Amino acid sequence: MADQTPTETAAPGAAPQTLPDRTANPADNQTGEAGESKNAAKKAAKAAKLAADKAAKAAGKGKQEPKAPKDPKEPKKKAAPKKKVEGAALIGIDVAKEEDFPEWYSQVLLKSEMLDYYDVSGCFILRPASYFIWEEIQSFFNTRIKSLGVKNCSFPLFVSEDVLEREKDHLEGFSPEVAWVTHAGSTPLEKKIAIRPTSETVMYPYYSRWIRSHRDLPLRLNQWNSVVRWEFKNPQPFLRTREFLWQEGHTAHLNEAGAQEEVFQILDWYSDVYKELLAIPVIKGRKSEKERFAGSYYSLSIEGYIPATGRGIQAATSHCLGTNFAKMFNIQVEDPTSKPGEQKPPLNVWQNSWGLSTRSIGVMVMTHSDNRGLVLPPRVAETQVIIVPVGITAKTTDEDRQKLYAEIDGLVTVLTAAGIRASSDMREGYSPGWKFNQWELRGVPLRLEFGPGESAGHFVTTSRRDIPGKDGKGTIAIPELATAVPALLDTIHDDLYKRADAEFAAHRKVITKWDDFCPALNQKCVLVVPFCLGEACEGEIKDASARKAVEETGEAEDAKAPSMGAKSLCILADQGEGIAPGTPCINPKCTKPAEKWTMFGRSY
Amino acid sequence: MADQTPTETAAPGAAPQTLPDRTANPADNQTGEAGESKNAAKKAAKAAKLAADKAAKAAGKGKQEPKAPKDPKEPKKKAAPKKKVEGAALIGIDVAKEEDFPEWYSQVLLKSEMLDYYDVSGCFILRPASYFIWEEIQSFFNTRIKSLGVKNCSFPLFVSEDVLEREKDHLEGFSPEVAWVTHAGSTPLEKKIAIRPTSETVMYPYYSRWIRSHRDLPLRLNQWNSVVRWEFKNPQPFLRTREFLWQEGHTAHLNEAGAQEEVFQILDWYSDVYKELLAIPVIKGRKSEKERFAGSYYSLSIEGYIPATGRGIQAATSHCLGTNFAKMFNIQVEDPTSKPGEQKPPLNVWQNSWGLSTRSIGVMVMTHSDNRGLVLPPRVAETQVIIVPVGITAKTTDEDRQKLYAEIDGLVTVLTAAGIRASSDMREGYSPGWKFNQWELRGVPLRLEFGPGESAGHFVTTSRRDIPGKDGKGTIAIPELATAVPALLDTIHDDLYKRADAEFAAHRKVITKWDDFCPALNQKCVLVVPFCLGEACEGEIKDASARKAVEETGEAEDAKAPSMGAKSLCILADQGEGIAPGTPCINPKCTKPAEKWTMFGRSY
Repeated sequence: MADQTPTETAAPGAAPQTLPDRTANPADNQTGEAGESKNAAKKAAKAAKLAADKAAKAAGKGKQEPKAPKDPKEPKKKAAPKKKVEGAALIGIDVAKEEDFPEWYSQVLLKSEMLDYYDVSGCFILRPASYFIWEEIQSFFNTRIKSLGVKNCSFPLFVSEDVLEREKDHLEGFSPEVAWVTHAGSTPLEKKIAIRPTSETVMYPYYSRWIRSHRDLPLRLNQWNSVVRWEFKNPQPFLRTREFLWQEGHTAHLNEAGAQEEVFQILDWYSDVYKELLAIPVIKGRKSEKERFAGSYYSLSIEGYIPATGRGIQAATSHCLGTNFAKMFNIQVEDPTSKPGEQKPPLNVWQNSWGLSTRSIGVMVMTHSDNRGLVLPPRVAETQVIIVPVGITAKTTDEDRQKLYAEIDGLVTVLTAAGIRASSDMREGYSPGWKFNQWELRGVPLRLEFGPGESAGHFVTTSRRDIPGKDGKGTIAIPELATAVPALLDTIHDDLYKRADAEFAAHRKVITKWDDFCPALNQKCVLVVPFCLGEACEGEIKDASARKAVEETGEAEDAKAPSMGAKSLCILADQGEGIAPGTPCINPKCTKPAEKWTMFGRSY
Repeated sequence: MADQTPTETAAPGAAPQTLPDRTANPADNQTGEAGESKNAAKKAAKAAKLAADKAAKAAGKGKQEPKAPKDPKEPKKKAAPKKKVEGAALIGIDVAKEEDFPEWYSQVLLKSEMLDYYDVSGCFILRPASYFIWEEIQSFFNTRIKSLGVKNCSFPLFVSEDVLEREKDHLEGFSPEVAWVTHAGSTPLEKKIAIRPTSETVMYPYYSRWIRSHRDLPLRLNQWNSVVRWEFKNPQPFLRTREFLWQEGHTAHLNEAGAQEEVFQILDWYSDVYKELLAIPVIKGRKSEKERFAGSYYSLSIEGYIPATGRGIQAATSHCLGTNFAKMFNIQVEDPTSKPGEQKPPLNVWQNSWGLSTRSIGVMVMTHSDNRGLVLPPRVAETQVIIVPVGITAKTTDEDRQKLYAEIDGLVTVLTAAGIRASSDMREGYSPGWKFNQWELRGVPLRLEFGPGESAGHFVTTSRRDIPGKDGKGTIAIPELATAVPALLDTIHDDLYKRADAEFAAHRKVITKWDDFCPALNQKCVLVVPFCLGEACEGEIKDASARKAVEETGEAEDAKAPSMGAKSLCILADQGEGIAPGTPCINPKCTKPAEKWTMFGRSY
């Protein structure tokens, strides 16, 4: 039982405790095979009884934005269960992704033990299953940025009010969301102190002290930390949370060329995080004036797509700040081109800031997971391969069972030696079917089944998480295990990416007539349109599409979506053959010519 | 110029900018060799002029607990320079460790670019030089705890008031230091929210939900995060800061045996972090009732010693919480020994919590560093070996110089291949002597000098940072580089440890008569005494030693120290042959017999 979270040994009744607004009834266990073993059935019954009691008490936890009960177990009135599902599965998702996406998403995260809700609204607990993914992203990205000479460091969580307010445009972007500390114990602070919403104004006063000469450039620092933005919109795990984990890179360069090279390099690496680790396709582009980062010169981004809702989602941003902050914070160097004696005016440095957050994990879950639960891309799965013994019956002798278990231990050893994160599930009293369900719920990419038949035939039966049922089944001869399994995991990664990429491509429509705009939007598409890049014009498109959508739309998965207008996601980095001269802007009210192919859509 | 922080290419005048209450005057540059090169001299002069101007403006920054100026460069009245050192070194420490320890410590940290002061009092910036050390500690400790099945995760920064206050004893330990968030933007929050001072009450409500059965035990979670304790005592970089980085492990076990095995194992690993990475000796023990962690059953700790001040310092703690929190948060499981049908009462789980913080970095700096600046133990030094070209004169041809540089590149390649973090300093316009000083200031453990002589003789000249001057010099034949350099780095580590260990041992006195207590204390010793373990008695010892110290003491390095009484640091884990029956407690007023050998001392 290598590499197990303690909770992986939970009794059948345990799982739903993370979602206590379900009643737990072992009799209705859809995975009923647990009944195969009286022993297991008893355990299940007892655990389920306990579960049901606790669940009843805890009703209301695990809902969208639960208000804080004194104790997760204490009764909660406000957030009463939205619906009671009698005889719901003990484990497994009991609502379809297509039916109720938000509820499905919540169940997948809770039942796979990726996340738990927290009693401070808008804050969430990253459990080991999701934090492991974040650690993988950290090591992947650290390797790349360190090759560029970026150094990690740590700046304080707090910002004084005057420093925070130095850069006005920048502040406007955040001020309504800034959390303020006013007291220490019962003592009021002389001056209230902000918790960083991002660290530009935290760090740059020191850049002006550390950068004395052009020889100090480029200065490239990065932090892995958490920031706080007290949004009042409805929070969503990973996607919109009041505290979130991210990395924020902050660099200073002698000139625009240096800054530009880096800001694009980082965007490529962000795209690699999504493609190479999370198997998610993203589109590179530049933010419109309206969507640009507060205080930046220009903002690059990668944009993802959530098929279930048809919404775009900003996946990461890389900002060129120009000399905007340098002017505010006096980050200057002497002009290296000035000859001895000659005194050219000092130069303001060029700066970039770039960030990638745990939002990426939410995009991954929404994209790949299904009605059986979580689907993890192999490269970020803590357990890549789970081996489950099968074909053990009441007739099987202890000796035979022990022999089988010993063979399975051997398989784990072989795979581990091949660099695979593999473990086995030899728990007694649980049927193979129940184990299959539990590991599928947790998203383990590949299951190996090994029983007397496999043992005799010197092979393992493989079952891919990403392709449920027969189509995902196969066999691997034992001698080929060390090479075939890594190869199969790569295939799984590639197939996950291809499917997601096809979905995105199929829902990324080129639209040149306004009349086609909203219908496509309501078909869950993001739209590539000719756009004048005007800020006012973008506002008109958003309003018009919101109104039109309400008129036209029928029922939609996402209650909030129809009324939501389309905003610009990014100005495509890839403009193809460009826009034919004289092509009008997509906005019928706009008189200006279109400038760039721009992706519009509903978004998170 | 592999692996360089941009700031490592700072002009000579740059360094003191991190300590702007010094005037910078190149004429008095103690490392004058920069004058060797006219070019360098000009640069130095120009940079120093700039430095001096900025310094004058910035006066007051970089002092103990600087109040926040709007901009580090703006004039500051309050914290005017304590003393003005005319013609101070441009780089290098200008106050002796023995003379003014706090000022020396501040200069070492600032000039080595380990740390910078921040404009929110009590908060500090960990620059890459120190954050690298923290990353090394993280990877060392992660490897060990993961082998134990500990999983990393992330809980929110915030705690609701009701949850924070659940465990009363525990709360009392922290409530005066808790930072409270009361507003988001201009909106007052319904209920004020605390920033975690530690995460027991943050995490344990969820343990009660996740732990359904004895099969879920042990549950072992860890976080690498920062916590906030708004202390009003005088802050000190790394040692006492209002926000600090640490790891906090929180585990739950079925019984005392499981908890006990872990809590001692963790203590051993903490000791290894100090000994194996930081080359610091620590003493293992148990905290007295008076010094125990608020809410714990018993607290283990490792205790260090700062020779310069003669004070003890708590280096890390590993707490067994018993069932104290389990009762408060209802963390219970069914008794696994209860037979079918039989219903034994549920069991409260046994819990541990354990933490190690960036304070460890401060102890390392205070212990090893000297009047030339920082001394880094090799295993945590980002640059372990710096190679400096020497013997290049005005007569040297470009060809010869290029040949020498090429050879040096080769040496870096060899060392890097041998797993050594090596780089070279080929900057033009800086004399070898100036470079030597700068790398010594930064604490690089080993310097290799390579010039025409070395090239001809196929060797490198070595210079150990930990042994200044001739005694630290040697040579290594080029063919032996890949083996001899790693060996020498290990020797440096061992020697650093031995010296620190000898210092500690020499100042750890066994005292059995009260009359010897304070004199030894004033000789900068920590005292191993027979102690009754009584809480009141400990209070009397502290008060009495404080009074007596004031009477007896002459001048002491640390202004605060003399008046400071001795508190118990730990009850030694190693009791030797124990205490002879009937031995009285060290406190003359105490009538109880001594129970244990206990280490007392002034402390941080």
